[in-house]
Amino acid sequence: MILEEKTMSSEKIYNGKIINLRVDTVELPEHKYQKREIVEHPGAVAILAVNENKEIIFVKQFRKAVEEILIEIPAGKLEKGEDPKECAIRELKEETGYEAENIEFLSLFYTSAGFSNEKMYLYLATGLKKGECCPDEDEYIEICEVKISKALDMIKKGEIKDAKTMVGILLSKDLI
Amino acid sequence: MILEEKTMSSEKIYNGKIINLRVDTVELPEHKYQKREIVEHPGAVAILAVNENKEIIFVKQFRKAVEEILIEIPAGKLEKGEDPKECAIRELKEETGYEAENIEFLSLFYTSAGFSNEKMYLYLATGLKKGECCPDEDEYIEICEVKISKALDMIKKGEIKDAKTMVGILLSKDLI
Repeated sequence: MILEEKTMSSEKIYNGKIINLRVDTVELPEHKYQKREIVEHPGAVAILAVNENKEIIFVKQFRKAVEEILIEIPAGKLEKGEDPKECAIRELKEETGYEAENIEFLSLFYTSAGFSNEKMYLYLATGLKKGECCPDEDEYIEICEVKISKALDMIKKGEIKDAKTMVGILLSKDLI
Repeated sequence: MILEEKTMSSEKIYNGKIINLRVDTVELPEHKYQKREIVEHPGAVAILAVNENKEIIFVKQFRKAVEEILIEIPAGKLEKGEDPKECAIRELKEETGYEAENIEFLSLFYTSAGFSNEKMYLYLATGLKKGECCPDEDEYIEICEVKISKALDMIKKGEIKDAKTMVGILLSKDLI
């Protein structure tokens, strides 16, 4: 039996710049109750951008949460009320300098449904033209271009270990 | 240039049952500072379990964070000091009742490196034998078995929208 959990009460713990935290008390059968710790996130986009040489555009950046430099596809969080496709165009330009002739929706998924509502909209960008890149002032990133076969190998070797990046590469490897 | 961010101070916001929240202040060049909101998670395992009919074992459960019933591969968080492989064996048994003759490491990835340190250890389980299942008292789940080709179709149609589940299916589709 699958149970939809009714919220009995909800306590706001933290309202932050990017995330909020709340703890809901939910009702289970037989008058039992449980706490659910929930991280509220505005949602995000990620862009699998592929150039004319069939290379994927990656960004390398230090991620404080994991204290590591990660290789990821370009991504960023949704501004309030922002259309995901517009956000994808904006983030691709900001992080890599690329503008894309074609932006195509690939997939929508939850990154960590156990404790967060973060929704990730994934797009495929092709027909790339290089312009100036203008990352946010607190983003220090490097761009690299990698052939799809190499990228698949990097997943196997554990060199790419970001979930959205893995989904993007694996989902589109037959498309590009 | 990629910058490794030095922690100048760290504020504990919340210590919970599953997650903790802290806010780090990090130093950037030119004496600038930024806040990093970080959700600490104990890490988790997920199990791509495949039966003799080449069907994947899924669990359906309501996820409070996203207020939806999701179709996922069996998964659960690591107990303190627990070996990930032991955890995978335990969670598979608890959630589905299956015991596996073979448990093979597939991949290690971060689910949401932008704001959380959650690490996901992914295993492939084969040689399944059905026993009794004994989910945690606050887990209300349903089990279903789905052919790999159907599962891939469910990803395309957006019926499977859990990142770890997508990675598991996509990564192992040529293995099983």
